[in-house]
Amino acid sequence: MEQQKVVLADQEIPRQWYNIQADLPKPMSPPLHPGTGKPVGPGDLAPIFPMNLIEQEVSQERWIDIPGEILDKYLLWRPSPLCRARNFEKLLDAPVKIYYKYEGSSPAGSHKPNTAIPQAYYNKAFGVKRISTETGAGQWGSALSMACAMFGLECRVFMVRVSYDQKPYRRMMMNTWGAECIPSPSNRTAAGRQVLAEHPDSPGSLGIAISEAVEDAVAGGEFSRYSLGSVLNHVCMHQTIIGLEAQKQLEKIDVYPDVVIGCAGGGSNFAGISLPFVRDKIHGKSLRIIGAEPASCPTMTRGPFAYDFGDLAKMTPLLPMYTLGHDYVPAPIHAGGLRYHGMAPIISHLLRLGLLEAASYDQLETFDAGVKWARTEGIIPAPETNHAIAAVVAEARRAKEEGKERTILFNFSGHGMVDLAAYDAYLAGKLVPYQLPDEEIQRALKAIAGFPKP
Amino acid sequence: MEQQKVVLADQEIPRQWYNIQADLPKPMSPPLHPGTGKPVGPGDLAPIFPMNLIEQEVSQERWIDIPGEILDKYLLWRPSPLCRARNFEKLLDAPVKIYYKYEGSSPAGSHKPNTAIPQAYYNKAFGVKRISTETGAGQWGSALSMACAMFGLECRVFMVRVSYDQKPYRRMMMNTWGAECIPSPSNRTAAGRQVLAEHPDSPGSLGIAISEAVEDAVAGGEFSRYSLGSVLNHVCMHQTIIGLEAQKQLEKIDVYPDVVIGCAGGGSNFAGISLPFVRDKIHGKSLRIIGAEPASCPTMTRGPFAYDFGDLAKMTPLLPMYTLGHDYVPAPIHAGGLRYHGMAPIISHLLRLGLLEAASYDQLETFDAGVKWARTEGIIPAPETNHAIAAVVAEARRAKEEGKERTILFNFSGHGMVDLAAYDAYLAGKLVPYQLPDEEIQRALKAIAGFPKP
Repeated sequence: MEQQKVVLADQEIPRQWYNIQADLPKPMSPPLHPGTGKPVGPGDLAPIFPMNLIEQEVSQERWIDIPGEILDKYLLWRPSPLCRARNFEKLLDAPVKIYYKYEGSSPAGSHKPNTAIPQAYYNKAFGVKRISTETGAGQWGSALSMACAMFGLECRVFMVRVSYDQKPYRRMMMNTWGAECIPSPSNRTAAGRQVLAEHPDSPGSLGIAISEAVEDAVAGGEFSRYSLGSVLNHVCMHQTIIGLEAQKQLEKIDVYPDVVIGCAGGGSNFAGISLPFVRDKIHGKSLRIIGAEPASCPTMTRGPFAYDFGDLAKMTPLLPMYTLGHDYVPAPIHAGGLRYHGMAPIISHLLRLGLLEAASYDQLETFDAGVKWARTEGIIPAPETNHAIAAVVAEARRAKEEGKERTILFNFSGHGMVDLAAYDAYLAGKLVPYQLPDEEIQRALKAIAGFPKP
Repeated sequence: MEQQKVVLADQEIPRQWYNIQADLPKPMSPPLHPGTGKPVGPGDLAPIFPMNLIEQEVSQERWIDIPGEILDKYLLWRPSPLCRARNFEKLLDAPVKIYYKYEGSSPAGSHKPNTAIPQAYYNKAFGVKRISTETGAGQWGSALSMACAMFGLECRVFMVRVSYDQKPYRRMMMNTWGAECIPSPSNRTAAGRQVLAEHPDSPGSLGIAISEAVEDAVAGGEFSRYSLGSVLNHVCMHQTIIGLEAQKQLEKIDVYPDVVIGCAGGGSNFAGISLPFVRDKIHGKSLRIIGAEPASCPTMTRGPFAYDFGDLAKMTPLLPMYTLGHDYVPAPIHAGGLRYHGMAPIISHLLRLGLLEAASYDQLETFDAGVKWARTEGIIPAPETNHAIAAVVAEARRAKEEGKERTILFNFSGHGMVDLAAYDAYLAGKLVPYQLPDEEIQRALKAIAGFPKP
């Protein structure tokens, strides 16, 4: 019998999140107000987010205490297990040890509740009664629905219509947790009505859904706010519970990774596993930290670093980040959670500083890796997670070629129980390779031309 | 911060299964050969099962060692957590402490891999190359597909056609794990072709699917066998890992339950949580142990105890059990795993001896309990598990009425991520109450008239 897992007792859960702002060798450029071109202040964000979360967003404190009521909810599934993938190692036949942090054990099946729970808690503490948000494939919307149910908040989710129609299971999850899930564009907002007037059959987009959710939140008045599931500093910070637990678990078996890997869409699960290790790197540790993104949405590997909007409708501040342009519509790959034109400013900043690396993978090779994983390790990974597994496979191949041992840690962001149609398409040979044409990068540069430079 | 879970380290996993045969105050009646009316011997079963599993089926040894290779696979997700449902307790507002053993963390999302892994292992060890089985809603078929992938065995699953068409996700899981999933009735077997000749549009049934799987296994010859996911002694024994772990975990917090609950279809998950506690009861411990079954398929609460076939096609031995008649077709409730006309002989025997109790619940009250659970504890339960939760709610109500404290342990057999359509129907008000008419019990008695009496 060989040890497969390191588990932590409830009492061992980390009591603080890690805020990397306190350790940055160079500060980040601030978000800018698109009208004035000046840095955005807390007051600008007050109609959209509760002030306690705005304070977290701009905090420079290294450690932020996790309130007891949040810990109580985290303990429903956290600490999550750290597992060794011995069967997958044998299949790869390379000199690697592979550890993964399994975030699929949350009730929503992904890492998203790590920030949904605190966001619901802080909104409730601020007196908010209703949260509005948007969702693409539905991971974020379902996680926030669950968190709102637990804290007695109303939840409205604007879900991109094409996903609402094609992926009914996550909509059903939201309903089961008591949330209202509205296909977007809808006639509930001016933004939605405008789109419907021009395109009655619009399939929707994340850009439109964000516009609807923000408008709905602001229109809701004093007790209504908006919530975002990735990209922002406080969201990435909540996710550091992943990396902090992993560090505790690795210490118990006296292991330190040579390589840390996470898939990256908006950047929050990658931030979650990696930021505590970036801290080690800033303090002299030698390791590589790799974000795995889709070849069809290669924000970090091919996009410019620039100020750009977080959404199509230009309702957000200008954010300093790697971007493919706020008007970019990624190919309809199955890893819906990675179809985002931008990248979390904190991840973008660390990539610029050389503290992180990025690599892109075609959808086909990610599903190849995911199916191999399922048949050796059991768990069927989410399509997003398959990108991290593809990066692990690439690292293992390199280790074999170089004849050098290495220890890999990656974030297993979620299981694929609600994404099985994607596997069905892959196994039926319906997925084709896709590389972003160079013209798209030129288009992205045009979209941000004239914006301030970070 | 309040403790929510008790976790065991890998090293603490039980190394033996518990075989209750060694502790029975009165031996079970044997299965009978339908032709001769004589007890079935190992030789009769040899074309269907490998001899090492047949030996387990008839073993009288109290403890059976779990081979290291099985433990290695168990450790992919086991030991499973024992959790306290504090939020659900608060909602119920009754003097109860509720603990649950969470079996949804397996890669297949249910307790089924606890026996799928050993069955694949023992078949492999016996030299078998291909396993055939049947599945209704797909929990068993998917679990066995995963286990066969891990041990390099071919797997063929005959899936009831109406489920194959209506519930594509579990079929996709089987394919992802490399198994072949065939809608039944099929033209692959004589049994299937006969049904199709008479009813080309037959929706199929578990009875037909069993016939096809057994025929396919026997036709496959020397290296081909059949596998069953519940009912049999060795299957129930593999599942005792659940109760054995739970006992270790409860000991750590110095708790002993007043009531142990599991949902019951074929009986294996109920056996898994309860048999180690039945042992305690035989040795003088005072506790109640309750099997929760559907009101529409009330095998234990309304069926006679009798010899009956395990399948419609009369291909199995005659089993001594509570039964609604081998020709009974349960109402199409969403808890597909509980739609079985019989009950595991070992559970039936213990019920007769007064060591177990049974209770039935209407589908509507089970979903009411399940939705309340999801909105407080997070996890969306499988429809089968909702029956156990309904029994917990009933026990809590009784405790409140009586003003007596009690500690409840139940088996959370699986999550409902692939059963969300059932919640959708419930939330849309499409489920209606159903009570089995008395005439059905009369029909059951007719079906078994003339069979030997146990």
